[in-house]
Amino acid sequence: MNIKRYMIKDTNETLLSKLDPNESGDLTKEEAEGKMKELKERLTELQDILFAQKKHSLLVILQGMDSSGKDGTVKHIFSGINPQGFIVTSFKKPSLEEEAHDFLWRVHMKTPPKGYIAAFNRSHYEDVLVPRVHGSLQKDEMKRRFRYIRQFEEMLVEEGTTIIKLFLHISKEKQLEKIQERLQDPAKHWKFDASDLQEREFWDDYQEAYQDVFKESSSKNAPWYWIPANRRWYRNYLALAIVVKTLEGLNLSYPKLNTPTPDISELISPRH
Amino acid sequence: MNIKRYMIKDTNETLLSKLDPNESGDLTKEEAEGKMKELKERLTELQDILFAQKKHSLLVILQGMDSSGKDGTVKHIFSGINPQGFIVTSFKKPSLEEEAHDFLWRVHMKTPPKGYIAAFNRSHYEDVLVPRVHGSLQKDEMKRRFRYIRQFEEMLVEEGTTIIKLFLHISKEKQLEKIQERLQDPAKHWKFDASDLQEREFWDDYQEAYQDVFKESSSKNAPWYWIPANRRWYRNYLALAIVVKTLEGLNLSYPKLNTPTPDISELISPRH
Repeated sequence: MNIKRYMIKDTNETLLSKLDPNESGDLTKEEAEGKMKELKERLTELQDILFAQKKHSLLVILQGMDSSGKDGTVKHIFSGINPQGFIVTSFKKPSLEEEAHDFLWRVHMKTPPKGYIAAFNRSHYEDVLVPRVHGSLQKDEMKRRFRYIRQFEEMLVEEGTTIIKLFLHISKEKQLEKIQERLQDPAKHWKFDASDLQEREFWDDYQEAYQDVFKESSSKNAPWYWIPANRRWYRNYLALAIVVKTLEGLNLSYPKLNTPTPDISELISPRH
Repeated sequence: MNIKRYMIKDTNETLLSKLDPNESGDLTKEEAEGKMKELKERLTELQDILFAQKKHSLLVILQGMDSSGKDGTVKHIFSGINPQGFIVTSFKKPSLEEEAHDFLWRVHMKTPPKGYIAAFNRSHYEDVLVPRVHGSLQKDEMKRRFRYIRQFEEMLVEEGTTIIKLFLHISKEKQLEKIQERLQDPAKHWKFDASDLQEREFWDDYQEAYQDVFKESSSKNAPWYWIPANRRWYRNYLALAIVVKTLEGLNLSYPKLNTPTPDISELISPRH
């Protein structure tokens, strides 16, 4: 699996229209599910070393249109790992307290300490998407926010956090289908929000705003990946593969004892 | 009172040795105390408008050698204000959780929301002072930290926080006197910490480290002021004067009603 293929490097304005949300890397569903099982085991192993070593941390940022499957992705890729070393935060509409601070305030608070994996379900990128699409963010203010984001992520990276940013890419038709599912299935009614339909009207503006996000915030150290997300099973498989590959790139290792190894026979002597 | 005189602009290496910790601006103690009373009333008025307007916030950072009077300054200048719009944080030795994050993490969390005044008793500057003096901070790591600090403070300022940084300047002799007081007065025993005596050995290194702090982090928008701190009454007066002058510079005003003024006669009609 070459995850590099999904790294966004070309930040051309029409990039998104050229990426196919139905793509599934020539895998069948069964193949992907088989590989996924292996990857989950590997993730569990890697997380254990990450936690023991307490040298690195991993931040996974999930963004995407409504119904692109951010919740489902978090659930599927992280359901097996040790919750003690994992933090997930869903960033909703800012509270009054959050709004009274700079937009990075609430986000910084939730960054992973060394040894941890953190997932952001939405993130500081909402603050350069929503107000932009709705016209309440001036251009110079937006430029400033992108600068803060770059500097903030750069600091996190230099201080030991590895950042991956996943854009879940669905088609407009698929979104409609998912919204309809939410209306028809009683177990999914709670997920339906009338404002999703309103936001759908701004589909093209959001796509354009995302283009700018990629252009302004893609970097070697905090790259954006696009995830074809029309097929759930491929979306989950690919997101997990990117997480595992990234952790493998850290060359993690269990820390050595930093005192001389005690003589075990002493510990089990009758006196103890 | 021209507070500009105390703004650190010259960041020459020997600056601190030229600043007199005994200075008292040609004021007598009585004069300073009289002025202080007026300034405190003014501070109360200004804080009320700041809180009502919720447009700006003020961050006052206090730094200085052990026994330079940081606690006393906070107590004297802020004792009269409305605690509802005020937050004070003393940054001690980082906890294990704090150490597992970047050094700005705990500091960012305590920045003032709009409408508030926050005081930092010690701050992120400790992270470019203590480890530097004790040789655990590499030069390139220190450069990086100064860059993070500049970018962080710049963001806060651009987002509506006014920052003033006060360096309480005492002499080495005065510090000894204060340590002795702590040992002799039972009501001050709790303030005595044997490690203060150890740190005293590094006096010159700290002075040098502070020089670098001024050089690397003085800016028009987040200036450093030096406060002659051998005389408590002048220290308190000057710190308060700087806070009040800074708030006055914001041209604060109570927000207007943003609905048409209701006809009061209606509100007091028998029906209500």
